[in-house]
Amino acid sequence: MWWQDTLTLAARPRGMHLVTGELVAAVPLSGVRVGLLHLFLQHTSAALTLNENADPDVRGDLQRWLDRAVPDGDPGFRHTLEGPDDMPAHIKASLLGSSLQLPVRDGRLLLGTWQGIWLCEFRVQGGNRRVVATLQGE
Amino acid sequence: MWWQDTLTLAARPRGMHLVTGELVAAVPLSGVRVGLLHLFLQHTSAALTLNENADPDVRGDLQRWLDRAVPDGDPGFRHTLEGPDDMPAHIKASLLGSSLQLPVRDGRLLLGTWQGIWLCEFRVQGGNRRVVATLQGE
Amino acid sequence: MWWQDTLTLAARPRGMHLVTGELVAAVPLSGVRVGLLHLFLQHTSAALTLNENADPDVRGDLQRWLDRAVPDGDPGFRHTLEGPDDMPAHIKASLLGSSLQLPVRDGRLLLGTWQGIWLCEFRVQGGNRRVVATLQGE
Repeated sequence: MWWQDTLTLAARPRGMHLVTGELVAAVPLSGVRVGLLHLFLQHTSAALTLNENADPDVRGDLQRWLDRAVPDGDPGFRHTLEGPDDMPAHIKASLLGSSLQLPVRDGRLLLGTWQGIWLCEFRVQGGNRRVVATLQGE
Repeated sequence: MWWQDTLTLAARPRGMHLVTGELVAAVPLSGVRVGLLHLFLQHTSAALTLNENADPDVRGDLQRWLDRAVPDGDPGFRHTLEGPDDMPAHIKASLLGSSLQLPVRDGRLLLGTWQGIWLCEFRVQGGNRRVVATLQGE
Repeated sequence: MWWQDTLTLAARPRGMHLVTGELVAAVPLSGVRVGLLHLFLQHTSAALTLNENADPDVRGDLQRWLDRAVPDGDPGFRHTLEGPDDMPAHIKASLLGSSLQLPVRDGRLLLGTWQGIWLCEFRVQGGNRRVVATLQGE
């Protein structure tokens, strides 16, 4: 069984955002006994990652660590036409990755107790973000 | 053909650990002519990565680099209740990632000569770690 | 439907290289209505990542950022027998990852407008690189 659709995540401010519920609600998981869900972000200045789903300070701390490791407006960057946050966004995107694959069992994602899906928005004005969701299983 | 099970890796000390043999032994690869094995860690303070399977110094050097890049007890962190190694563990987990997908051919993983599966334990007391293994193929 | 083959990317100099066209040409995507393509690099000193496919400065800036974050010949490294660029290559490989999974629709990869597949060659003399391509779908 294959299902595939392109989902749209509404524009969010720069930062880390929990989107587990929104994505799960848009995918017909209930028909799958065992399978995999692939989530693929069609962008190069944002990322999808799995991390802690409870304390918002984890999201802030990870964002601040990345902002320090890859500072806006680093004078070494040559790709600067799209603004001081653009090249850092590309670097962070490759560090965290643009896709996730998650196991499915009996109609539910097999996430750990503390795992949530984060949309990592690295641009100040990132706009809507498209996610291609592909579900396969039996 | 689909097969899925949750494997348990016994608690290991903080550091990088080769777990290729242990994971391979627990998965019925022999029944698959061509396929994919997905390994999914249900935790947010450890990671799975592929890297060099021979010299233990590679594991030590990667661990030390991460410990320097994301230091324990960084005074900028706000998520500190679970100890000085907790927030760094979350950051390292997103940098390295919590899942792997590996090609299968004629009952064997198609790893390169020098590739091994590492469990990266970022907590001092991480406890057992659960891995959901999903095998598909024909 | 399953298809799997090992592709060889010819040796490239240290740096980031766009390989989307070369890889796509080698995979029989046209027979797939909906599916996934998995690309798996059988090496631990190079990486595959998705990033911007237009301005070569993005590739140079990401390379320079990584070279600063993980410097050649860091005196803290113990794994030094294979040269000053070897241990940094292993670290960068785990940071960026060695595989990609991409959605397929109506015979084409569903990449975003600005997304391209990069081969990240971290060694000065990396040689040919092998990629196991696994295509599944219906």
